[in-house]
Amino acid sequence: MIYFDNAATTQVYPEVLRTYTEVATKVWGNPSSLHNLGSQASRILEASRKQIADLLGKKTTEIFFTSGGTEGDNWVMKGVAFERAHLGRHIIVSSIEHPAVKESALWLQSQGFEIDLAPVTKTGFVDMEKLASLLRPDTILVSIMAANNEIGSIQPIREISQLLADRPTISFHVDAVQALGKMPIADYLTERVDFATFSGHKFHSVRGVGFIYAKEGKKISPLLTGGGQESDKRSTTENVAGIAATAKALRLVMDKFDAGQKQLLAMKQIIHDELASYPDVTIFSQIEDFLPNILTFGIKNVRGEVTVHAFENHQIYISTTSACSSKAGKPAGTLISMGVHPKLAQTAVRISLDEDNDMGQVEQFLTIFKQIYNQTQKVR
Amino acid sequence: MIYFDNAATTQVYPEVLRTYTEVATKVWGNPSSLHNLGSQASRILEASRKQIADLLGKKTTEIFFTSGGTEGDNWVMKGVAFERAHLGRHIIVSSIEHPAVKESALWLQSQGFEIDLAPVTKTGFVDMEKLASLLRPDTILVSIMAANNEIGSIQPIREISQLLADRPTISFHVDAVQALGKMPIADYLTERVDFATFSGHKFHSVRGVGFIYAKEGKKISPLLTGGGQESDKRSTTENVAGIAATAKALRLVMDKFDAGQKQLLAMKQIIHDELASYPDVTIFSQIEDFLPNILTFGIKNVRGEVTVHAFENHQIYISTTSACSSKAGKPAGTLISMGVHPKLAQTAVRISLDEDNDMGQVEQFLTIFKQIYNQTQKVR
Repeated sequence: MIYFDNAATTQVYPEVLRTYTEVATKVWGNPSSLHNLGSQASRILEASRKQIADLLGKKTTEIFFTSGGTEGDNWVMKGVAFERAHLGRHIIVSSIEHPAVKESALWLQSQGFEIDLAPVTKTGFVDMEKLASLLRPDTILVSIMAANNEIGSIQPIREISQLLADRPTISFHVDAVQALGKMPIADYLTERVDFATFSGHKFHSVRGVGFIYAKEGKKISPLLTGGGQESDKRSTTENVAGIAATAKALRLVMDKFDAGQKQLLAMKQIIHDELASYPDVTIFSQIEDFLPNILTFGIKNVRGEVTVHAFENHQIYISTTSACSSKAGKPAGTLISMGVHPKLAQTAVRISLDEDNDMGQVEQFLTIFKQIYNQTQKVR
Repeated sequence: MIYFDNAATTQVYPEVLRTYTEVATKVWGNPSSLHNLGSQASRILEASRKQIADLLGKKTTEIFFTSGGTEGDNWVMKGVAFERAHLGRHIIVSSIEHPAVKESALWLQSQGFEIDLAPVTKTGFVDMEKLASLLRPDTILVSIMAANNEIGSIQPIREISQLLADRPTISFHVDAVQALGKMPIADYLTERVDFATFSGHKFHSVRGVGFIYAKEGKKISPLLTGGGQESDKRSTTENVAGIAATAKALRLVMDKFDAGQKQLLAMKQIIHDELASYPDVTIFSQIEDFLPNILTFGIKNVRGEVTVHAFENHQIYISTTSACSSKAGKPAGTLISMGVHPKLAQTAVRISLDEDNDMGQVEQFLTIFKQIYNQTQKVR
């Protein structure tokens, strides 16, 4: 089996799962309990928070746990909107955000907020001039992803940070779900970024755990109100085992970062160059300014779904762009926003690599690709 | 160790944790993925949903997974409020709801909804006459818990169902977090109930998983918008391992139900009768119309915190009423709502039993209780 769908989800690392089961078995108290089963759990919780904060170069008071990327995105979008509604009701998100951000923005629109979608260039990057022109005195929130989930384009977070430098009343949110472990932290967690969203299962932790970074002093209304956990910002009994597992996964991923970058890039480069040699292949993801693990392409006149299933017959797992939209059968929203013709966009499939993939798998993938390309010759 | 704090959280059953690790290891695909790693995961997800629906006597299309009780309560409160705001903005919750419901109601108040708190009797039950008098033509939602988490009083859900029988425009929500496995389903999941909230870690599943029941045809806005999972009602990559574990835990708990009820009631009765024989003990939880596992009491002039720590010295773990409010050091909200004097309410501690506790532990508890009672004699 060759799993090239790591942007959809990753396999939990065995040592991460061991941490999970160990904590779930031995430190299962409720961190809010007064007795020492509670304080043991609370210590693990806070140690995990510190480890994550340290790895990101942030303060422990700036990390808040969630159930995953979707909750994080929803929380920041809705929490900032409700918190700051008295200052203005204008919000900007890019046209290629993950549905968790985009749909949150559309829901806010139904609640009387005004939403602008910042357009992207033909190659999939937020158009800085157009973004600048959308800013208004009543803009309260700008949300731009660190790296796109469908094609891997890395967004100009540093430039946007400069653009927003003298507009302190605007909260700046970065969905960093696909970025973590795949690009340098400093490139998306700049000093200007107020909020960022992360998801554990994208970096080999267990499902159902994520966290947000919320810069000290930045206000946000809770999405989950109740018992007052997470400094009263996100109530619910803490998933201590999942959180400890996530801290462990983050450390492992960060340990592998330098070697992983080289490995991913080398694999992507080979796939990219080989695919580019086929006349009926369109490549949507470039090398420079793109994540080293994501490569999206299409075979002329072959629907992405057909390509996915053709690879599946050889136990090679890839995706029609994002997992979230794949079952809906819609063409990739990102490509449509880039101005790619819907017919061409429907051919798109996404390879998303992992540090654990190797060159043998790359070669096998390319061999099978050649077969599929030849088999589909007749439809072109 | 004697763990009598099962209403705060329960220890995950070993076989439930095995299900979790097995699914996390073997069926780790994203259910939204088109390829067969995705469809495998999707099948486990739907089989788990069916098992839970069957055990509750409901339809699979009526079960939606969440990250736990707090999210479920928040979702129903806010989701129903936003969905039905055009029909009215009046909401009724009991004065003894869990903070996840109460704080959600208060947040909705800040968004222009009108909230009434239905008062309770001196013994901790919603006052039916007063509840009836609060109903208005613009009431859109009534939320009453199945059983109280601080003292265990079982609320008159059947009578409230009758009261609301001819008012179909009111959504009726029942927080069933403490009820599941501790009282007959039919007593709180009546035909009239539109929504109910459940939490896995309260019945020996893993942390971070819960579900809601939402009656077919009943509309609710999503709290988490995004990729469209859970029939577009609750987006996020599904925690398949956690969900499979929760289905397993529910089956185990239901299997034990009849024997468990007898066992719990027998243990509670002995503790109740013995504690009642001490002149300086006030018992807040009775036997009839109370959960068989919760017993809340106080020793005159001894703060609950002191009692908890005294037991902790003997490795007996109990709680100052709810775990969620215990660290805040506030007296139990339920007791205050019942009209108990704050000074007396501050003495309250909660024992919450489990089917796995036994009579030996009960005896040991009572022996230690006697010691603690005598040691604290001087403050009375």
